[in-house]
Amino acid sequence: MKLYKANIIFTREKDKFEIIENGYIAVENGRVVGVGTDANAFGEADEIIDYGDRLLIPAMNDMHVHAPQYRNQAIAMDLELLPWLNSYTFPEEAKYINTEYAERMYRRFVHDLWRFGTMRTVAFATVHLDSTRLLMNLFREAGMGALVGKVDMDRNAILPLHESVDDAVAKNEALIAEWNDPDGLVRPIITPRFIPSCTPAMLRACGELAQKYQLPVQSHLSENPSEIAWVQELEPESRNYGDAYDRYGLFGQTPTIMAHCVYTAGEELELMSRRNVMAAHCPTSNLNLSSGMAPIRTFLDKGIKVGLGSDISGGHDLSILRMMVYAIQVSKMYYCRDKSKHFLTLSEAFWIATKSAGSFFGKVGSFEPGYEFDALVIDDSDLNHSHYSLLHRIERFIYLGDDRHIVHRFCRGQEIPEPRIFD
Amino acid sequence: MKLYKANIIFTREKDKFEIIENGYIAVENGRVVGVGTDANAFGEADEIIDYGDRLLIPAMNDMHVHAPQYRNQAIAMDLELLPWLNSYTFPEEAKYINTEYAERMYRRFVHDLWRFGTMRTVAFATVHLDSTRLLMNLFREAGMGALVGKVDMDRNAILPLHESVDDAVAKNEALIAEWNDPDGLVRPIITPRFIPSCTPAMLRACGELAQKYQLPVQSHLSENPSEIAWVQELEPESRNYGDAYDRYGLFGQTPTIMAHCVYTAGEELELMSRRNVMAAHCPTSNLNLSSGMAPIRTFLDKGIKVGLGSDISGGHDLSILRMMVYAIQVSKMYYCRDKSKHFLTLSEAFWIATKSAGSFFGKVGSFEPGYEFDALVIDDSDLNHSHYSLLHRIERFIYLGDDRHIVHRFCRGQEIPEPRIFD
Repeated sequence: MKLYKANIIFTREKDKFEIIENGYIAVENGRVVGVGTDANAFGEADEIIDYGDRLLIPAMNDMHVHAPQYRNQAIAMDLELLPWLNSYTFPEEAKYINTEYAERMYRRFVHDLWRFGTMRTVAFATVHLDSTRLLMNLFREAGMGALVGKVDMDRNAILPLHESVDDAVAKNEALIAEWNDPDGLVRPIITPRFIPSCTPAMLRACGELAQKYQLPVQSHLSENPSEIAWVQELEPESRNYGDAYDRYGLFGQTPTIMAHCVYTAGEELELMSRRNVMAAHCPTSNLNLSSGMAPIRTFLDKGIKVGLGSDISGGHDLSILRMMVYAIQVSKMYYCRDKSKHFLTLSEAFWIATKSAGSFFGKVGSFEPGYEFDALVIDDSDLNHSHYSLLHRIERFIYLGDDRHIVHRFCRGQEIPEPRIFD
Repeated sequence: MKLYKANIIFTREKDKFEIIENGYIAVENGRVVGVGTDANAFGEADEIIDYGDRLLIPAMNDMHVHAPQYRNQAIAMDLELLPWLNSYTFPEEAKYINTEYAERMYRRFVHDLWRFGTMRTVAFATVHLDSTRLLMNLFREAGMGALVGKVDMDRNAILPLHESVDDAVAKNEALIAEWNDPDGLVRPIITPRFIPSCTPAMLRACGELAQKYQLPVQSHLSENPSEIAWVQELEPESRNYGDAYDRYGLFGQTPTIMAHCVYTAGEELELMSRRNVMAAHCPTSNLNLSSGMAPIRTFLDKGIKVGLGSDISGGHDLSILRMMVYAIQVSKMYYCRDKSKHFLTLSEAFWIATKSAGSFFGKVGSFEPGYEFDALVIDDSDLNHSHYSLLHRIERFIYLGDDRHIVHRFCRGQEIPEPRIFD
């Protein structure tokens, strides 16, 4: 058993921080045994690691990100969605047939997740088997957790990215055979890109894969009005966008996470709640693409789980800490329009990013007993120039901090060293 | 004459970047002589400074910031405006009667402006003469440009911050006597805090000072609905908030900059346009305080000048580069609601932050001939890992860059070294 000593900050519930000044976390076999101020409360420690006045917080989880759009991060933000997809997104993804190119980019991507303290990721890869496998290997090599989706699509993209349903199933099954260890840190996730890029046959095959192998599902939901109208046209029998997935077994039949959910309301909202579908809230992407403001307060009120996603490259920023700030700010704009939907507090945003999001991976995102020890050690001494309270220190770190302040990173109890990049 | 060689990027007009790959800027007596690709076009150079593949851009201008709220940066963001003012803002400002405290904080403030490449600042200080003078001296010592306002207020704050009109006038005149050099880099600006904290007598005195000494004016305008209603109650004869200033000679009679202008419309908008009043757009502050979205596209269409302000500590971020991103994002939310108001493009946000804002200081914010050489040298090599175009490089720097990328800073032709901080 190891004891880590620091100023410990986490959330058990969304409404308040747990703050233990000069506290200890006991960790054994990668999991938290307990937290408190008495070093002797947990039995004999093999080692005590003292982080002094630093902060110790749960690590970050990125619940929606397109790994192969790494090169396009923060470019062409003046374009609207469709020209941007056709001029930037699809041509870039087509390059991932080349595993050398994929390795150079994916190494940088995994490195940058590490840099910003993201220890668990739900990622879209591309349609390609080899480069998707490569990405999974890079996460494993790094020791970082990930659900990685080989993207499935067979219409409305560009030809090199289309594949037959049989090919898609075969590639998915190849990855599943290699990777489907229920305890694995890196696992596959079934990933129909979104309704417009999948024929009914492809959607059906995806649902069957999820069911057969009991695998989680990710996709996009109700991101913008014209997309929603398009889905209605393509799936005329569906009652709403969520229902269109549901008909194919892709909406909570196995653990499901849907990105955006900006316009989710009414029956779709009820269905999400009933099926325990998690929303991956991507506030920067929703701003950058003029998508709108997701009803996060409504989700919380309904008990719908929410996590935060960077959504590179619709989003421009890989930091989930920055995403908390944006989530709060967008909720304040929402509140401006509708005073019955109170804005997110800091502890709520933190809880969403850590414990709520982390639940998609099991017991991840808190320091309660039994939780996997995913943690960041924060040296905020330059931000703490004037004797701030611990509550203000965590707030200043979230609002003002960056990768320089993150001095140690742990995933499942292991300290994660800086992943290698090429060139 | 000196020649600076780099990849030069600036805006002449808002609609496009001027991009000169491997170009030269000729600088003499602190001003730009010309820009181009021919090193010999400007006559004999005394020195050529080669920045290689780096970017050379105009420096940033912060058009609205409360220097004494530096300690409160990024804390207590969950509070609403009034408890936040009373629990945090006013008690902190009261500490500035102590010049030792003021020096420790103001040095950090000036240092951080430098860090983020802000070479010109329009700042609120406090009501105190000595610490306001101190702040001006720190800007002068650093070599950075600033308009610094001793804040005037005599109601609705807390008692230690109230002063008599006579005291306010005397303190302003003391600073004016010391500092009112029209060519000075650091100058006073008349600063009634806002209508609710100034009696008519104080507002009248402020207007007279501005007129008598031909000094610029700054204040707050139409930030949120309850403030606007309060102003209407306090100045019942005014036709709108702007008109309330106008009646006292504080709305364009001398160069005037008004922070926020979130709800400026109708007659107030027309008056702003007619009087050439600049709007200091503070997008993060307007998000953090749930103020709303300022109609920036309307301002541009009307020819109303706009600059960007960090508004510490309503805003949490001192970087004007980050402010460009937020300005674009807020304009995209505005566009979501009203498709007739197209969102800001990158070149527009850049032009607002540099040339448009800079016009408040004279010829500042561009590299056209005659402009003061306020510039930043950007080493974006880590962001430029995949052979991006210069247009994408400036976009990635604006969206992803931070202080680490700014490797040289110039104000009025002088390279500005890192200012000293204490403790």
